[in-house]
Amino acid sequence: MTSPSTDEPVPASRAEALELDARDPLAPLREQFELPEGIVYLDGNSLGVLPKAAPARLARVLRQEWGAQLIRSWNAAGWLDLPARVGDKIARLIGAGPGEVVAADSTSVNLYKVLSAAAGLQRSDAPERRVVVSERTNFPTDLYVAASLCRERDWRLELVETADLPARLARGDDVAILLLTHVNYRTGWMHDLAGMTAAAHECGALAIWDLAHSAGAVPVDLRETGADFAVGCGYKYLNGGPGAPAFVWAAPRHAAHARQPLSGWMGHAAPFRFAPEYEPADGVARFLCGTPPVLSMAALECGVDTVLAAEPLGGMKALRARSLRLTGAFTALVDRHAAAWALRVVSPREPERRGSQVCLVHDAPGGHGYAIVQALIARGVVGDFRAGEPGPPPCPDILRFGFSPLYTRFVDVWDAVERLAVVMASREYERERFRRRAAVT
Amino acid sequence: MTSPSTDEPVPASRAEALELDARDPLAPLREQFELPEGIVYLDGNSLGVLPKAAPARLARVLRQEWGAQLIRSWNAAGWLDLPARVGDKIARLIGAGPGEVVAADSTSVNLYKVLSAAAGLQRSDAPERRVVVSERTNFPTDLYVAASLCRERDWRLELVETADLPARLARGDDVAILLLTHVNYRTGWMHDLAGMTAAAHECGALAIWDLAHSAGAVPVDLRETGADFAVGCGYKYLNGGPGAPAFVWAAPRHAAHARQPLSGWMGHAAPFRFAPEYEPADGVARFLCGTPPVLSMAALECGVDTVLAAEPLGGMKALRARSLRLTGAFTALVDRHAAAWALRVVSPREPERRGSQVCLVHDAPGGHGYAIVQALIARGVVGDFRAGEPGPPPCPDILRFGFSPLYTRFVDVWDAVERLAVVMASREYERERFRRRAAVT
Repeated sequence: MTSPSTDEPVPASRAEALELDARDPLAPLREQFELPEGIVYLDGNSLGVLPKAAPARLARVLRQEWGAQLIRSWNAAGWLDLPARVGDKIARLIGAGPGEVVAADSTSVNLYKVLSAAAGLQRSDAPERRVVVSERTNFPTDLYVAASLCRERDWRLELVETADLPARLARGDDVAILLLTHVNYRTGWMHDLAGMTAAAHECGALAIWDLAHSAGAVPVDLRETGADFAVGCGYKYLNGGPGAPAFVWAAPRHAAHARQPLSGWMGHAAPFRFAPEYEPADGVARFLCGTPPVLSMAALECGVDTVLAAEPLGGMKALRARSLRLTGAFTALVDRHAAAWALRVVSPREPERRGSQVCLVHDAPGGHGYAIVQALIARGVVGDFRAGEPGPPPCPDILRFGFSPLYTRFVDVWDAVERLAVVMASREYERERFRRRAAVT
Repeated sequence: MTSPSTDEPVPASRAEALELDARDPLAPLREQFELPEGIVYLDGNSLGVLPKAAPARLARVLRQEWGAQLIRSWNAAGWLDLPARVGDKIARLIGAGPGEVVAADSTSVNLYKVLSAAAGLQRSDAPERRVVVSERTNFPTDLYVAASLCRERDWRLELVETADLPARLARGDDVAILLLTHVNYRTGWMHDLAGMTAAAHECGALAIWDLAHSAGAVPVDLRETGADFAVGCGYKYLNGGPGAPAFVWAAPRHAAHARQPLSGWMGHAAPFRFAPEYEPADGVARFLCGTPPVLSMAALECGVDTVLAAEPLGGMKALRARSLRLTGAFTALVDRHAAAWALRVVSPREPERRGSQVCLVHDAPGGHGYAIVQALIARGVVGDFRAGEPGPPPCPDILRFGFSPLYTRFVDVWDAVERLAVVMASREYERERFRRRAAVT
């Protein structure tokens, strides 16, 4: 059976789901991970799972590199090269070249760097442009950092509805920077990266992309699309571990002269010369700042390697096809019960607009989204809940399910919907123990 | 025998050194660490050694918290609390109160935050002040970050010789911020933190301190001294591991209203509300930015715990006394051969001006500092080399030896000087294999 809209296969039984998995050439990639027994983990878009290689790697970094070799390991164990080496590996996943990406700091800190760099470029080229345009539903921390940059420079951050972005850019004489997250963290909506970049450039703005929910999940071709800067997250689909370092990319045409203000010694042209004057490194290394957190970096490298392991099997293109089949099947299976459960799929159905997640809204009076997610977790299906925001247009409470093409299986899709069926049929989410709203889900 | 200038004990033989260690009530603290056999490690001011607790802790974080509990660990394993919990522990070492310190990001990134915060306070209180005063020999990355801040605001960074700082502050109508590193990374000179802070305040400036070479090595009493902001490093005397997260302190009088521009979600008053507007957390938590790197944070906590283990034995005061005895003994032992070896101690001899390191200069023509350090390393004595800078006043090549009061012993001091004697007597540092200058030592 296939989904009517997309020709994606939809299992009609658990046996069929198992058969789809058995036939899948990407299925062995799951063996790279340590996964808890009996759990259907659909939250890899929040925290990716543990690569089997990570504990041994960390033990080696701790006992041999740090414990025994100590300070020598900066050279002998390649600690100094980690930001560039891991960056080069990430580059292969996002359509960037070697030497164009570094792993460093957090997504938020990196966003501040590239926003500052882009603002600096615009200040000299087009000082009259003082607006940063972003999306109202963009990830809040991106908006906080952009707002902060604007506050400092007496610029303005303008938040636009997704559908209104093209029109806003069409009258964009005042726009300095377009800042978007490629795949929206709430809705799963995926922007046309090339098209929106072109629209930004057409109006004279620079385009900055947050790839937090893209890297390792959907193909990105930064060079091809002509984007200006990008940042992304190491601990979601890259499986780099909790709070893993993030990454930053600068288009080669900007990397050699764009300046960012976090001018720490690791971004210096010659860090160990200890010169009193800052001289930024050639290329993207100038987006480094302080000493890299080696333990977290080593785990991130293990995580990135799990995605690179797909290269002989077709790489990001093959992973993307699998991701679409998984989200398509989940969508189709939920659709069948949508009316009975009052659950509505709100993530995009068109493959070209869909990230690697499916989002549901509970349309019953009051909405029991939080309680349903809790009841599912109690039954071993881990998704998450994102509270809505009041105000028009409505931004409802969301039940969010992430699908990692590296380890999520068709049988997980099947089991998740089966358990959702139990939760919805029994209305167990109405029980008191599921109804408390915690600050953190 | 004692050092003539300071009454510190100086062993006259290896046996006496061993006896000093045997009598030392702090000696058991060394058992907390995994130390390589046969190495005299005098580079803990660059990278502290491995706490025995760290490998087991990291294995637990990896397998149980990340691998098995996954996303739940943000709450269940206390990941979200790490920046504040580790911060509270560091606070006990630097004379700060609970809730006044957070562990986060790198020293450089944190310095940018506090410099921005201080500049913001001054901008509203005293807009005519636009000079940041620092020391010419301050750690370069601190100067890079300060220069960057000044460049952005059209302020000026003024670098002053150490001896001229009081006079500069005395005519400091234009000075907004005094930025100093408490213990100088090259010379080991320790500033009078209270006195310099008072001098800064007297002229209307704010005082920011970098405690990179202080935390865990010398007592600091931030609250008592009236300082405004401080940052510091996790991987030196705190033994937090390579590139460990750094820390940031804001005086309680500033913490509730000072703004810093890296406004990531972890610094929000309610990070999981995902509100579109940034509202900074009360207190120092507003100096957080992105998601904490949990693996590196966990190792940092193990490292900080090794210093806290000294609390029942007298804490930082007792550690300081031991550190002075170690550096005093090393200085006195080198002094005896100074003329024969053409090696001169250039770190301060006065205990109140001396950090936890001893610095030597090789006065022979050309200076063989680099080669001597390499020859010592080949003989198992690990110190480091910091190249000088041309220009008056002279900033010579430095042989740098750090002494951690947690694990360096008197017998290490003795053995280091004995091996230095062999290196100097045999002139083996003149051999070709020691003479190549590498970019990194």
